[in-house]
Amino acid sequence: MTIFNFAAGPAVLPHEVLEQAREELLDWRGTGMSVMEMSHRGKEFMGIAAEAHADLRELMAIPENYKVLFLQGGATMQFSMVPLNLLRGKLSADYVNTGIWSKKAIDEAKKLCYVNEVASSADKSFSYAPGFAQWKLDKEAAYVHYTPNETIGGVEFNWVPDTGKVPLVADMSSNILSRPCDVTQFGLIYAGAQKNIGPAGVTLVIVREDLIGHAPAGLPTMLDYKTHADNDSMYNTPPTYGIYMAGLVFKWLKKNGGVAQMEKTNIAKARLLYGVIDASDGFYTCPVAKADRSRMNVPFRTRDAALDAEFLKQADARGLLQLKGHKLAGGMRASIYNAMPLAGVQALADFMGEFARSKG
Amino acid sequence: MTIFNFAAGPAVLPHEVLEQAREELLDWRGTGMSVMEMSHRGKEFMGIAAEAHADLRELMAIPENYKVLFLQGGATMQFSMVPLNLLRGKLSADYVNTGIWSKKAIDEAKKLCYVNEVASSADKSFSYAPGFAQWKLDKEAAYVHYTPNETIGGVEFNWVPDTGKVPLVADMSSNILSRPCDVTQFGLIYAGAQKNIGPAGVTLVIVREDLIGHAPAGLPTMLDYKTHADNDSMYNTPPTYGIYMAGLVFKWLKKNGGVAQMEKTNIAKARLLYGVIDASDGFYTCPVAKADRSRMNVPFRTRDAALDAEFLKQADARGLLQLKGHKLAGGMRASIYNAMPLAGVQALADFMGEFARSKG
Repeated sequence: MTIFNFAAGPAVLPHEVLEQAREELLDWRGTGMSVMEMSHRGKEFMGIAAEAHADLRELMAIPENYKVLFLQGGATMQFSMVPLNLLRGKLSADYVNTGIWSKKAIDEAKKLCYVNEVASSADKSFSYAPGFAQWKLDKEAAYVHYTPNETIGGVEFNWVPDTGKVPLVADMSSNILSRPCDVTQFGLIYAGAQKNIGPAGVTLVIVREDLIGHAPAGLPTMLDYKTHADNDSMYNTPPTYGIYMAGLVFKWLKKNGGVAQMEKTNIAKARLLYGVIDASDGFYTCPVAKADRSRMNVPFRTRDAALDAEFLKQADARGLLQLKGHKLAGGMRASIYNAMPLAGVQALADFMGEFARSKG
Repeated sequence: MTIFNFAAGPAVLPHEVLEQAREELLDWRGTGMSVMEMSHRGKEFMGIAAEAHADLRELMAIPENYKVLFLQGGATMQFSMVPLNLLRGKLSADYVNTGIWSKKAIDEAKKLCYVNEVASSADKSFSYAPGFAQWKLDKEAAYVHYTPNETIGGVEFNWVPDTGKVPLVADMSSNILSRPCDVTQFGLIYAGAQKNIGPAGVTLVIVREDLIGHAPAGLPTMLDYKTHADNDSMYNTPPTYGIYMAGLVFKWLKKNGGVAQMEKTNIAKARLLYGVIDASDGFYTCPVAKADRSRMNVPFRTRDAALDAEFLKQADARGLLQLKGHKLAGGMRASIYNAMPLAGVQALADFMGEFARSKG
């Protein structure tokens, strides 16, 4: 049975990428070694890492005055590393609160500085992206942090705020590389790899050079961006196989039209699912304001938990997997990252239509 | 050509493990998913992680009052996490300095506490393991830290110190699972995976429960062992594929006689190489005191750098790869972890003999 995996992350990877990984698993290009067995300081892996860097720079048109770092610890580690490195002697930072992931970032930052919650969608259960006119920004803030796509809530910003001279920091874990992005609008972008980049265990950080080198004295070496920037992310042993896999995904993106083409397909995929929801006469509901609906994570539910459970059971039997919503959200969630083919989304849309007709 | 990979880490993995990984890469046991694509909270990956934990506990006979954590950031991150978590209000910790890796641990600890260097082999260029009678231990120290095997220097402790009530902490990155080890002698053991466990990007921590939960208020959540202990190492997305690979290595170890059998083979492997060195009439030299020679990392050199370079070139042509010594040490180094077969060591020993005869 063909299966389609709608997991929120770790998530589906491009089939061709996995096939290449299998092909090369025991012997990378005649070296007799698996990539997993290569010294990170050897010419083979150094080449793999350099290509991954160059391809990502090309895909995102990353300017020369930005460093690209491949770290460990996930976005959660970045929740701390961002304030530790970017406060630069300042006492407060601005945070936008749009749901569970921004709240986690806020809670970690509160351990290290005063957090000014400059905008929030808490008033409507985190179901929308607060308009920029409502953001009460502080010109003295060390930086402004927001979450362009809330993986659990399914809320995505369709615009990038202009925070002037205050550096903008974005947790792009769940929508990086899914749409064009002007890196120059950001001071720092971070993303866990396990949604649109590759396997779990790699964390991407793109940071403007002038924001590096301001960590307080005594900070553990591993928590200082400067350590990793000065050593091309090889201060200690990096997660080599994850970087290799990310590199294969970058090649796949380039071969398939890059980020611009991804956006077109992602819009088409999202329209299919929201189309079924909106045409279902209330059988399916999505809690998110239409203008702010995520192209990556589509949360929806039926009228009650019992029917949701039946939906999930039938979906599973058809090979439409991992559609259960996050435990804090309930219902269903379809994560449709770059690697989810249109055919998978079509199969889900078809099933949703059938299920609604059979139960409606 | 059969190759043998003597890299110090990332290092050779068991051939059967890589073959199984290839076999399962696109479809893990009929799920239609790669392990890399599985939600870390799904039943499939939860099962994989639970088995890896159980197998490691069995292999090392880890008592119930110890937690096993699979973290990220390598041993280098542990150089900071150990003092951050284990100081427990105390002001100093005892460190044994036996070379480059213990020095790195000391330098990080010095950012966080007073470091009492209780023993050192600096007087003889870090070529031996200081006898326990020379350790000037402080009964008030928060813990005693040492490096049972110096990966670069090739010095290994053949005994475990008895530090009484002061917890003993060991960086076992390069000799864990290579010989039996009584976990109850330690308060905390840590190890980067990329030598004897699996691919880079996973860090193993085995910690006695009473040492968990003493982190200072305000510590970033990710740096607190309690976070990971309370959440079975799934507070955030773990490096899932690396944990899967480690699990396969644990199964391979169990199938091949466990740690006791590994030790026997490792002794035989080490004897082969040191035997050639000692019988070479000074053509090859190893700087390490005989009693403290590492079974895992065998450093040696010829009379000059030009001859070393020729050795490396000829070795490479024969498929004896990655034998170059660390840049700080020079010469050669053969890393012969569990996954290096006796045949590989025999091939190297044969070549060393031939090379010596041709140049002697």
